[in-house]
Amino acid sequence: MNLQLPKGTQDFSPEEKILRDKIVDTLKEVFELYGYAPLETPVFERFEVLASKYAGGAEILKETFRLKDQGSRELGLRYDLTVPLARYVGMNPNIKMPFKRYQIGEVFRDGPIASARYRQFLQCDVDVIGSSSMATDAEIVSLVCTAFCKLNLEAVAKVNNRKLLNDILDYCGVGKDNQEAAILSIDKSEKFGMEVVKNELKEQRIDEKKISTILSLISIKGNNEEKISQLKKFLKDSDGLNKIEELLSYIKNINLKADFDVSLARGLAYYTSTVIEAVLKNSSVKSSVAGGGRYDNMIGAFLGKGSYPAVGISFGVDRIYDALLENQKARQKTNTKIYVIPIKTLNESMKIAQQLRDAGIKTDVDLMDKGPSKNLEYANSLGIPFVLFVGKKELQEGKLKLRDMKSGKEEMMKADDIIKKLKD
Amino acid sequence: MNLQLPKGTQDFSPEEKILRDKIVDTLKEVFELYGYAPLETPVFERFEVLASKYAGGAEILKETFRLKDQGSRELGLRYDLTVPLARYVGMNPNIKMPFKRYQIGEVFRDGPIASARYRQFLQCDVDVIGSSSMATDAEIVSLVCTAFCKLNLEAVAKVNNRKLLNDILDYCGVGKDNQEAAILSIDKSEKFGMEVVKNELKEQRIDEKKISTILSLISIKGNNEEKISQLKKFLKDSDGLNKIEELLSYIKNINLKADFDVSLARGLAYYTSTVIEAVLKNSSVKSSVAGGGRYDNMIGAFLGKGSYPAVGISFGVDRIYDALLENQKARQKTNTKIYVIPIKTLNESMKIAQQLRDAGIKTDVDLMDKGPSKNLEYANSLGIPFVLFVGKKELQEGKLKLRDMKSGKEEMMKADDIIKKLKD
Repeated sequence: MNLQLPKGTQDFSPEEKILRDKIVDTLKEVFELYGYAPLETPVFERFEVLASKYAGGAEILKETFRLKDQGSRELGLRYDLTVPLARYVGMNPNIKMPFKRYQIGEVFRDGPIASARYRQFLQCDVDVIGSSSMATDAEIVSLVCTAFCKLNLEAVAKVNNRKLLNDILDYCGVGKDNQEAAILSIDKSEKFGMEVVKNELKEQRIDEKKISTILSLISIKGNNEEKISQLKKFLKDSDGLNKIEELLSYIKNINLKADFDVSLARGLAYYTSTVIEAVLKNSSVKSSVAGGGRYDNMIGAFLGKGSYPAVGISFGVDRIYDALLENQKARQKTNTKIYVIPIKTLNESMKIAQQLRDAGIKTDVDLMDKGPSKNLEYANSLGIPFVLFVGKKELQEGKLKLRDMKSGKEEMMKADDIIKKLKD
Repeated sequence: MNLQLPKGTQDFSPEEKILRDKIVDTLKEVFELYGYAPLETPVFERFEVLASKYAGGAEILKETFRLKDQGSRELGLRYDLTVPLARYVGMNPNIKMPFKRYQIGEVFRDGPIASARYRQFLQCDVDVIGSSSMATDAEIVSLVCTAFCKLNLEAVAKVNNRKLLNDILDYCGVGKDNQEAAILSIDKSEKFGMEVVKNELKEQRIDEKKISTILSLISIKGNNEEKISQLKKFLKDSDGLNKIEELLSYIKNINLKADFDVSLARGLAYYTSTVIEAVLKNSSVKSSVAGGGRYDNMIGAFLGKGSYPAVGISFGVDRIYDALLENQKARQKTNTKIYVIPIKTLNESMKIAQQLRDAGIKTDVDLMDKGPSKNLEYANSLGIPFVLFVGKKELQEGKLKLRDMKSGKEEMMKADDIIKKLKD
C-alpha cells in the first residue's frame, strides 16, 4: 500500500496543531465576547441545497465534492458555512432575531492545487441575521480589530460599500447590467494594479473617458473624511456614501479605526452594501486575513421567502497561521509542562505524576524504564520545559530533583513546592 | 427546494453546541493533563488506505462513504481516527516513541439509522504508540477516571484481557481457530444476557459441557482479588491473568478503582490484550461511554513493517451528552453574560458594550432600537443573566440600571462596579 495523503490535503502535527488550536480558541473567545453563539452543521449537505441558484454559484459548484449515501441520495461536502446557515435559518423559523451565530468548521473545494490552496480548509465565520442597522456592521469591524489585537497581529480593517460603487458607476454612465462585471474588475485593483482594471473595463466596452473617471474616483486619496467630502462633490444623495459615512461614524465613536477604501469590492457577487477586509501590516502575508460584508438578499432568495438582512465576516485560519509562524522564533512543540523520570521507582513516580495532574499540571511520565539519558533526550526533543527525577534516595529524603530544561539548572524540592512553582 | 438535513445527520443549535463544546473542552483538558499532544488529519482519506486488510475490516468498509476528486482519485470519508493515526505514523518515521496523541474529530458511517445512530458523529480518541508496559494501560484507566470525574458523571471503569479469554477458551478445549468467534459471542453477555451467549456458542458447535465451564469462568463473582485467585485455580501460568493482575496493581497504587470483568471482550477484532470500558452509574445511559484497549499488532500489520505496540481509548461524546442532559435541570442557552439596552443612546451604549468587552465580559447590545419590552423578551428568551439599561438621564448621573434577570432585582451602578460584579 502506498501511504499518501489525498491530494490537496494536509496533516497537522502536534506542533502545528497547537498553534492552530490557539488561533481558533482566540477567535472563539472574541466571537463570544461579542455575544455570538456557536452553531454546528454536518460536514455534508444534500446536493440540492448546495446547488440552489442563490447558494454559492456555478463556479463553486464545479469544485464541490459529490457523494451518495446507501439510499442513493445525492450529497456534497460543504464548500462554505453560509449556505448551511441559510438552510438552518429556513428550517428553524422560530429563531429569535437578530440571530448572531459563529461557526468554525472544515470546508472543501475540489479545485486546482495552487500554492497554499488546499482542498480542505478551516473557516471561522460570524454572521448576524435580522439586523439592517449599520451599527451592526460597525460591530463586525470592531470584532475584527479585537480579534487581531488578541492574536498579536497588526492589522488594518478596510471598508467600502457596494452601493457606493454602483453609485459611482451610475455617475460615470455605466448601465446597471454592466455594473456587476465592472465591480468584479475593480476588485482586482489591489492585487493586480489599476492597469489590469483599466484593460478589463475596456474589454467590457466601457468608454475610455468613463474609465478614466471611474479610476480617478476609486483612487481618491486622503483620510476618510477627505475622501467622503471629495466624493460628495460628484455624487448627490448617494445612499452608498451615506451608509459608509454612518458606518465610519460608529467606528470612530468606539475609538477604533478603519480605512475607507473606495476600490475595495470583494469577489463574491452576493454582497449588497458594506464590504470589509482585514490585511496585515509588517507581514509577508499580503492577502486578506479576514473578509466579509453585508448580503441582505441572499438568504431570503435562497429560502424563497421572507427578508433576512445579514452581515458577516470569515477569518482565514491558514493565512493567520502563516503570519504567526513568521513572528515566532520557536514554535511551541508541546503543552506538557513537566516530564517525570522514574529511576527504579515506577510506582512512586506514577503516584507523583497523579499528584501533579490532580493539581492541574500537564504531566507526562516515563512508564517504559528508558533510563535517564534517553529520557532527557525525549523530553528535550518534545520541548517539555521541566523534568523531574524520582530516585529512591531522593524519595527517602522527601525531596526530588527538578531540572529546568532551558537553563539546565537543577534544584532539590519538595513535591508541594514543585506544584506551587509550576502553577505560577 | 426541500429544506432538509442529509439522512442520519443533525444540526446542533447554540444551546446544544454549548454543552457539546463543554464536553470536548473538558476531555481536551484531561488529555493534555496526561501529556497527550493534539493531531489533526483530513476528513477524507485515500480509499486504498481505508480498505487496507488490517484497517477497519469488511463490515465497516460497507458503511464507508465513497467519493472521487476531479482527478478521479478514489477517496472515502474516514470511519474512525485509528486508521488515519496508523497512516500518520507510517508517513512520519521520525516521530519520537512513545507517541502520545489525541484527536477529536468527526467520523462517518453510512449505516442503517437506528435509534441514536448517526451517520456523522464525534470521536475523541487518545492513543499511546510504542509502549508495551501495562503501566501505560493503567494510565489510560486513570485518564478515564479523571475525565468522568471532571465531567461530573459517576462512572465505573471495567477492565479485562483478551489473552485471558483465550487462556480460558484453551482451558475449556476450544480450538484456536474458533476462539475469535467465541470471544465476539462472549462480548454480548452484558447487553443480551448469558442465554444469548450460550446459544451462540452452541451454534459454533462447542460442547454443552465446555460451554458450561466457559460460562462459569466468565461469570466468576467476588472482588478483583477473589476473581484472580479463583481463576488461578484453573489456569496455570496464564499470561492474560498475569497482565490483568499487573494492571490492577498499578491502578491500586494510584488509589483508583477498576472492576475486573471476566466477560468483557469489546467488539473489535484487533484487540490483543487489555480491554477497557467505562459505564455510568445512576444514569439511563446504559451503553458504554468510553471504550478501548491494547492493539499491539494492528499498526505494524497495517504498515507492513515494524512493531508498534499500542493502547488507546475512545470517548463517545453523544452518549456523554445524553447523560449530562439528564442531570441538568435547565440547559445553558448562551455564554453571553450581559445584554445592553440603549434607550435613545446608541452611541453611548456601543461605547459601554466596548468597555465591557475590553474587560473580558461577554456582552451583547441591541443595535436595532427594539425598545425596552422587546429587548427584555429577547434577553429572556436567550437566557442572558443580566440586562443593562442605558438611558440619557442615567448617563448624566453616571450610573446605569443593572437588572438580574433571574431575581428581577434592579440596581443603579457605576460602569466600573458593574464590571467588577460581573467579573466575579
